[in-house]
Amino acid sequence: METIQAKGYGASNSIFNGLSEMKFERHAPKEDEVHIEVLYCGVCHSDLHQVKNDWKNTIYPCVPGHEVIGRVVRAGSAVTTFQVGDVVGVGCMIDSCGTCAPCQEKEENYCEGPVSWTATYNGYMKPDGSGYNTYGGYSTDIVVKESFVLRIPEALDIKAVAPILCAGVTTYAPLKHWKIGPGHKVGVVGLGGLGHMAVQLAAALGAEVTVITSSEEKQGDAAKLGARHVILSTDKKAVEQHELTLDFILSTIPDSYDINDYVNLLRRDGTIVTVGLLGEYKKPLNNMDVAMHRRSVAGSIIGSIQETQEVLDFCAQHHILPEVEMIPIQDINKAFDKMQDEEVHYRYVIDMQSLKEPA
Amino acid sequence: METIQAKGYGASNSIFNGLSEMKFERHAPKEDEVHIEVLYCGVCHSDLHQVKNDWKNTIYPCVPGHEVIGRVVRAGSAVTTFQVGDVVGVGCMIDSCGTCAPCQEKEENYCEGPVSWTATYNGYMKPDGSGYNTYGGYSTDIVVKESFVLRIPEALDIKAVAPILCAGVTTYAPLKHWKIGPGHKVGVVGLGGLGHMAVQLAAALGAEVTVITSSEEKQGDAAKLGARHVILSTDKKAVEQHELTLDFILSTIPDSYDINDYVNLLRRDGTIVTVGLLGEYKKPLNNMDVAMHRRSVAGSIIGSIQETQEVLDFCAQHHILPEVEMIPIQDINKAFDKMQDEEVHYRYVIDMQSLKEPA
Repeated sequence: METIQAKGYGASNSIFNGLSEMKFERHAPKEDEVHIEVLYCGVCHSDLHQVKNDWKNTIYPCVPGHEVIGRVVRAGSAVTTFQVGDVVGVGCMIDSCGTCAPCQEKEENYCEGPVSWTATYNGYMKPDGSGYNTYGGYSTDIVVKESFVLRIPEALDIKAVAPILCAGVTTYAPLKHWKIGPGHKVGVVGLGGLGHMAVQLAAALGAEVTVITSSEEKQGDAAKLGARHVILSTDKKAVEQHELTLDFILSTIPDSYDINDYVNLLRRDGTIVTVGLLGEYKKPLNNMDVAMHRRSVAGSIIGSIQETQEVLDFCAQHHILPEVEMIPIQDINKAFDKMQDEEVHYRYVIDMQSLKEPA
Repeated sequence: METIQAKGYGASNSIFNGLSEMKFERHAPKEDEVHIEVLYCGVCHSDLHQVKNDWKNTIYPCVPGHEVIGRVVRAGSAVTTFQVGDVVGVGCMIDSCGTCAPCQEKEENYCEGPVSWTATYNGYMKPDGSGYNTYGGYSTDIVVKESFVLRIPEALDIKAVAPILCAGVTTYAPLKHWKIGPGHKVGVVGLGGLGHMAVQLAAALGAEVTVITSSEEKQGDAAKLGARHVILSTDKKAVEQHELTLDFILSTIPDSYDINDYVNLLRRDGTIVTVGLLGEYKKPLNNMDVAMHRRSVAGSIIGSIQETQEVLDFCAQHHILPEVEMIPIQDINKAFDKMQDEEVHYRYVIDMQSLKEPA
């Protein structure tokens, strides 16, 4: 079988000592696949969770990256949507079962097949532990099925667009699902990679946005991104003053946190959706606060391929772009440290040229 | 001011030693109020929580009882709906602010006034700690504003109807709010006072009902009440086999429990609503399970006056009645013990005649 010699950055085992350069093979594109030369790749907090095995499901070696922008260098014989030279994107998924109800309804991100959807990296694993690994976008090349490849609107700056593929759709999908629009008061908890997209998207959808952040420094940014109000989460009095004011809250905190701190901000029938955390909250939920105003605590994970295309087009139409800082791949471990310390404004994007021609 | 000499059963202080007989005064009905001679009063798990100060908000002396069936013996001059001799009911609320959005929208149970709604007993307390106490239906007489009094349909047996006023509406309101009907698969966790009403109501609404219970003995009852399936919560394999099958779950467990045990039973976009517990869950919620299928964890508290009337009429129409065991008031402490030990099938109702003429 024909193979592609690829280079990437990954972690070789669970004793995490930072990512390092590694070589691996990818299969050449099958008839329904495209071979993409990776140009840029966003750095998501999930990348760090995964390489550190925070979710206890990491398959090593682990090459992260699921905000991939690249150029088609070869297309399988049956590919009709893309041609060589096209600028395209790959998000969090590269496959799904295709036959379950969610897949049939174009919600592949809720695939109920035996192994759920196939993640762009670290997938997929069968229930019996067998399966194969996938390598993500921290690499020179990637090969993906046409139906999981996104069209990048020309209006979007390809150096900044990558984070829309995860941070963008992860916040856009729940805003759409819960029908957020004009007249709604929306809270965004956390102003990081996801949060800074959520604010822009919710505002563009017509909502009145309140940012709840622990960072005094980010208050000015919140306003620039489109927030009408900012609450410092450390200011208990300010939090109390905003009780019963929000219709919907999107929490983008990527680590375990106490959701009870935010539930009381919701109005009657309000919903708080956590998209950042994939694990246990810090403390048990208090149903007194939930029940007294018939509130809901929900969760949402990434978005479908259709929603990913939709948010790309929506961003092009509304002139929304992630705020990014470009780094060479050689700086990835420093970038992970800064992301962990919440010092990134707001998303690192790796210039993958650096992997071909080291600085 | 004219007063009524009433007798009741209550707890005089927080060192809970069981209820005992006490005398107290009630004010005579104002122009918009009715004076009701109490005939029957249901025994709700909340009564026990409240007298034991489980919610840390009990005002003593505490006379419980919010499933009250009685006969109007006097009506204020402005009362138009009821007349002397009418059989009526009083549920969990006897007043609310009347001016907030929920009150204006006939959802008094979500009143956002300064003290929320006024509970039939143990209310109301202002934020500064002042206010007055209210005494519930474990008493010979009660005086309530006409707009918070329910009409009891003639078709319903007045000896059994009392629990509809709390257990009935508490489970009916969320079933209606989440639009449960034909085609829905509904789980009911816990087969006690609330659960046995939830099964009957959900089945009458057209849903396919699954009971999840820890009691092997109750499996037969579940079927008689209208459940199509029963899962023993202790049978982990059976629970796993039902993962991703239910659209909606109503949890009636009255004490702190681990909600994670039930979340995975929900299908994509499914909702679990806890109506029994007013406090913290036993363990932190795992958002992995919630987010992976865009599930929701919600809460609901009792129901509005309009919904209470609706569920009474619905029960009359569908021949639904609580299963009750009649006790004299002198047996209330024994009944509390049995309720705590889950030995009641399914609701005790106090024959209040026993308070007037002790056995």
